[in-house]
Amino acid sequence: MGSKEEDRGGEEEEEEENEAAWLVGIKNLQIQPYPLPPLGPHDVKVRVKALGICGSDVHHFKTMRCASFIVKKPMVIGHECAGIVEEVGTEVKSLAVGDHVALEPGISCRRCSLCKDGRYNLCPEMKFFGSPPTNGSLANKVVHPSYLCYKLPDNVSLEEGAMCEPLSVGVHACRRANINPTTNVLIIGSGPIGLVTLLAARAFGAPRIIIVDVDDERLSIAKSLGADGIVQVSQDIKLVDEEVGLIQKAMSSRIHVSFDCVGYSKTMTTALNVTHSGGKVCLIGLALTEMTVPLAPAAAREIEVIGIFRYRNTWPLCIEFLRTGKIDVKPLITHRFGFSQEEVERAFETSARGGNAIKVMFNL
Amino acid sequence: MGSKEEDRGGEEEEEEENEAAWLVGIKNLQIQPYPLPPLGPHDVKVRVKALGICGSDVHHFKTMRCASFIVKKPMVIGHECAGIVEEVGTEVKSLAVGDHVALEPGISCRRCSLCKDGRYNLCPEMKFFGSPPTNGSLANKVVHPSYLCYKLPDNVSLEEGAMCEPLSVGVHACRRANINPTTNVLIIGSGPIGLVTLLAARAFGAPRIIIVDVDDERLSIAKSLGADGIVQVSQDIKLVDEEVGLIQKAMSSRIHVSFDCVGYSKTMTTALNVTHSGGKVCLIGLALTEMTVPLAPAAAREIEVIGIFRYRNTWPLCIEFLRTGKIDVKPLITHRFGFSQEEVERAFETSARGGNAIKVMFNL
Amino acid sequence: MGSKEEDRGGEEEEEEENEAAWLVGIKNLQIQPYPLPPLGPHDVKVRVKALGICGSDVHHFKTMRCASFIVKKPMVIGHECAGIVEEVGTEVKSLAVGDHVALEPGISCRRCSLCKDGRYNLCPEMKFFGSPPTNGSLANKVVHPSYLCYKLPDNVSLEEGAMCEPLSVGVHACRRANINPTTNVLIIGSGPIGLVTLLAARAFGAPRIIIVDVDDERLSIAKSLGADGIVQVSQDIKLVDEEVGLIQKAMSSRIHVSFDCVGYSKTMTTALNVTHSGGKVCLIGLALTEMTVPLAPAAAREIEVIGIFRYRNTWPLCIEFLRTGKIDVKPLITHRFGFSQEEVERAFETSARGGNAIKVMFNL
Amino acid sequence: MGSKEEDRGGEEEEEEENEAAWLVGIKNLQIQPYPLPPLGPHDVKVRVKALGICGSDVHHFKTMRCASFIVKKPMVIGHECAGIVEEVGTEVKSLAVGDHVALEPGISCRRCSLCKDGRYNLCPEMKFFGSPPTNGSLANKVVHPSYLCYKLPDNVSLEEGAMCEPLSVGVHACRRANINPTTNVLIIGSGPIGLVTLLAARAFGAPRIIIVDVDDERLSIAKSLGADGIVQVSQDIKLVDEEVGLIQKAMSSRIHVSFDCVGYSKTMTTALNVTHSGGKVCLIGLALTEMTVPLAPAAAREIEVIGIFRYRNTWPLCIEFLRTGKIDVKPLITHRFGFSQEEVERAFETSARGGNAIKVMFNL
Repeated sequence: MGSKEEDRGGEEEEEEENEAAWLVGIKNLQIQPYPLPPLGPHDVKVRVKALGICGSDVHHFKTMRCASFIVKKPMVIGHECAGIVEEVGTEVKSLAVGDHVALEPGISCRRCSLCKDGRYNLCPEMKFFGSPPTNGSLANKVVHPSYLCYKLPDNVSLEEGAMCEPLSVGVHACRRANINPTTNVLIIGSGPIGLVTLLAARAFGAPRIIIVDVDDERLSIAKSLGADGIVQVSQDIKLVDEEVGLIQKAMSSRIHVSFDCVGYSKTMTTALNVTHSGGKVCLIGLALTEMTVPLAPAAAREIEVIGIFRYRNTWPLCIEFLRTGKIDVKPLITHRFGFSQEEVERAFETSARGGNAIKVMFNL
Repeated sequence: MGSKEEDRGGEEEEEEENEAAWLVGIKNLQIQPYPLPPLGPHDVKVRVKALGICGSDVHHFKTMRCASFIVKKPMVIGHECAGIVEEVGTEVKSLAVGDHVALEPGISCRRCSLCKDGRYNLCPEMKFFGSPPTNGSLANKVVHPSYLCYKLPDNVSLEEGAMCEPLSVGVHACRRANINPTTNVLIIGSGPIGLVTLLAARAFGAPRIIIVDVDDERLSIAKSLGADGIVQVSQDIKLVDEEVGLIQKAMSSRIHVSFDCVGYSKTMTTALNVTHSGGKVCLIGLALTEMTVPLAPAAAREIEVIGIFRYRNTWPLCIEFLRTGKIDVKPLITHRFGFSQEEVERAFETSARGGNAIKVMFNL
Repeated sequence: MGSKEEDRGGEEEEEEENEAAWLVGIKNLQIQPYPLPPLGPHDVKVRVKALGICGSDVHHFKTMRCASFIVKKPMVIGHECAGIVEEVGTEVKSLAVGDHVALEPGISCRRCSLCKDGRYNLCPEMKFFGSPPTNGSLANKVVHPSYLCYKLPDNVSLEEGAMCEPLSVGVHACRRANINPTTNVLIIGSGPIGLVTLLAARAFGAPRIIIVDVDDERLSIAKSLGADGIVQVSQDIKLVDEEVGLIQKAMSSRIHVSFDCVGYSKTMTTALNVTHSGGKVCLIGLALTEMTVPLAPAAAREIEVIGIFRYRNTWPLCIEFLRTGKIDVKPLITHRFGFSQEEVERAFETSARGGNAIKVMFNL
Repeated sequence: MGSKEEDRGGEEEEEEENEAAWLVGIKNLQIQPYPLPPLGPHDVKVRVKALGICGSDVHHFKTMRCASFIVKKPMVIGHECAGIVEEVGTEVKSLAVGDHVALEPGISCRRCSLCKDGRYNLCPEMKFFGSPPTNGSLANKVVHPSYLCYKLPDNVSLEEGAMCEPLSVGVHACRRANINPTTNVLIIGSGPIGLVTLLAARAFGAPRIIIVDVDDERLSIAKSLGADGIVQVSQDIKLVDEEVGLIQKAMSSRIHVSFDCVGYSKTMTTALNVTHSGGKVCLIGLALTEMTVPLAPAAAREIEVIGIFRYRNTWPLCIEFLRTGKIDVKPLITHRFGFSQEEVERAFETSARGGNAIKVMFNL
């Protein structure tokens, strides 16, 4: 205990030096001091060691907004992270100093009807790392509730821990769509979300998975990650019927569930038309607010369109997938940067360019 | 048995005289002979006594098509019917001559995977009364499988029996949406389908039901049938936000499930925007093949869009609702006609005009 | 605000006088001072006005234990209660001083996997009013989390508010068993839990409900509360087959769900044998730790046995049932007592005697 | 066509010679002529090539009964089979002469409410190969409905096709229990059913599977088939608590679903006590009609007990598992026999002895 007190003394000094990457304007990130809040009895203080850049971070970086969320004042960016526990609150029993942990970024109110019902990702009072006006976690240290920090086993690295966040999107989608060995799967879009959905669908036992994209380089990554088939498609809506035929040929069986990881009128039209009667279409990618789609013919085949928003209670499952090797997220990490003003800028530019960058990771 | 033989002899004579209403061209219905197929061991012959006109019948009548179904040769019209058993096949044990029965109009293959799975309404080989190229049931007599003929109890009339068909659409929708005392319901469209959905949602225990339409006369019918609130809306897409506010005010609580019984871009936009996070939107009305809708914001609140196609295994439940008085369909029957060339023409014209005609019924 | 300050001043004085009914030994309840804990930011202080006695309270009263819970030191008894808000924590926005509220008695950890998943009634760290070692609520005042205090509308009394607790058991059971207009229901046991299950099943739309008991007086209450049929049974296991026949005759249709509100080998045997293939048996009453039952023949008809423990997220639904009049719990309240040493003793003795006492209520 | 006519001519001759293994008394099987019924329009005639012996066949062989089914007159035995199509009915389009097919042995009525609902395995009029009074399929040829004959791909052998039947039990159980990557599984019993459940649970993605048995030889087979852990248990009920501890230690995580493939009081007690709150216990093995079990404590943790009876609509999934190699059933086939009077007797005696005989297969 004595040494712990000393540690805490040390921490307090460090605390004054805690720095974070603040988004202060369009394409303007500044590393600046970030004083931490006091540690509550159920909180832990975590030294962030790995953090990945998400598409929504890039949106904020480029436009100061994402969907209906607007960055109105400087905000610490970032939310896909893992780190090492440096201090635990007085009531924390599940974690100890030195534990490696992956952080679930959203703090729900735990009081509303949706929270009580276990659908806390829909909580209207959610406070989510790096979603305005809540500060994110691209910082030396953060304070976070212990029940949202999940201990990593020895054979799961901190970078893999940070990947639990994007992987959770795929896992939540597969769980909601009830992917299992009876469901053949189509994935539209071979970006980071399409790829984690591919990995998750494979782990949930999907017997056949076809993935489509406009970019053949991304498709070859999907192929290397285990897709049973790939189909290169266009952005031309007039080619939908032809491409539906190509996809069905590639599947050579019924398509029970389609994941639209893009969210254009064309991608959704493809998903609705190609999915078999009684099947499901999961809308994960939300590129367009409004889309023009053939809903009625799909409804007449009793297709369900299932909305996906983030995830809930997925970290333990993701960590188990990583621990047992059922899912390997390491091939998704294509670029790595340190935590300096220059590196942060380069990292975000790299991620914003897209191309061969799947997941850009910070090592802090 | 002797008398039965005599009956059958009589029937055979009548059989030659069996007549039906044939759709031979646009707005051209002709009562003409309709020879019956032989009675299989599991079939029954039913003397049709009551038959209601459905919106799809009117579509066929006016345009010789409905959705992707096209009338290419003369076809007997009609499918909402009930009657009296006149003859039973050798293997039929559940029914006897003289029984009053309501007829489920669709014969599925019972061999495909969807049939085995209990989702026989999606069977690709479905043969459905009055859906081309299958002949319908606006006829003196029809032959039908016994397991699709449901005995009516004494206190349920043949007209009520015929109403099991449209009521089944509402019952199937409520069952798929899992309507129960925890689900507040919005119904968009106060035509026949909207009204049977209202009756079914009430029977399933929905605590509050609001119904909207552009026609205040139809809304007043909904009100008289037990809607907790009504809201008159416009066809102007620009008024969606305002009307969403009015609907929410009328509900004065969360809307958990919305039924779109129309199927326009505007009605679906209203449904998607007004439904609470985690809720469901059922698409029943299929007016437009393609619609422009804000799917992404709804998906980000994890709303599910559930397609509804006809029904499956609903007759026993409908009959129980009618027997116990939990549902009263009689107020929906607004017009009655006999089975003569002139009356058939007038009946279809009445139904096609809409207005105050909810359900137009033949008494044969 | 000024008057509120005065109120709070008054409260502080009263606080020193707060008294509760302490269970200090077998059949030994003593009204003694009960100092309240400090009010947290999300807590409210409630003046208890109505409290009902539960079967588990009587178990504690008579034996100092209930199932695996043992009363090892003096404990405030009681948990079915409603009252008036006297003070609200600094962060409470949903409630105000003077609000009438019904109290959900269990505080879960809100951090474990079961809590995150919405199944908080199974939380291993649950702190539940009057379940040792947690103090109960038969007291002048209690402090409770605001999110477990549900505002009562004007037309729902405080006694009805207290009844939300037992009613919740029936509501949770019906929700888990998915009671709806397609499910005929058998209820075994016509005590308080059987009767609230009857009320809930009716509200969920069960078309036919049969209730059985050994006591014809209790059955007549069930009849008056709306059971479609009643069957008096014995405690003789040898009569099971005969009684199954009587119950099936009373139902005159399939039994889809049976609720065993007793929990003896005989009641469970009846439930397993009488329920139709593919149906469900809910075990609510837990009289015996071990029972001898014909599980295999039931399993061979794919019957599910569903365990029920308390409830989760049921108060809003119960209050809505009471507000709309879909459920009337008032007939269940058969006896009323005040909050004095003598009245408390008499109340518990009355409840322990059973007989015509369904729900014994305190008015504080 | 010409040659087919010739073939059929040939078949007719052979037909007179069709022979089957008739169970004529306890442990008395006789190969005798078995005239085939006429081929209906939707039937196929199949030359049986592989047939496995099931535990229920052995029960019939040893006692002339199994559960409530009693062999009252000579009956052809056997039901796990695959063969080659020799003739197809006039309406059969999905199969052709020469196709290799696996046979689903039960013919349901396809008219009752359970059949319509997709739960045809519960049909009260089921006619099931080798379940009295329906003849089985240990015969040179059988006539069977085409929709219950599933074409085998080239890389799935006829023996593997016959194994679809026992495998279906495991697949159906895993589907009903919703086994997926979030569910740790315990299997009690390492006989044929326990082992197919192991293979199925693995294919459904169960992350950890522990299997227990009294026989260490059977456990070593389970281990070789991929169980993550094995625990040898006793038949002594007094050791339940100790063994529950050993099983939990072997799992080193929560047990979400337990399959009891035996059906004794002790095995069920183990399953109920070891399964985590909110989990499921599947009762597959039905050794005892009545058992004494601690249902109440399990109910108080909201455990569900799920009955399993045979399977429904599992063949396509089993064949897909075999085709892709996700499941390999070949190691389960431990003994092979031909179809002669002597071999049939030896085969049944081998299966009845148990020991190292897992699946005894006929090659006809």
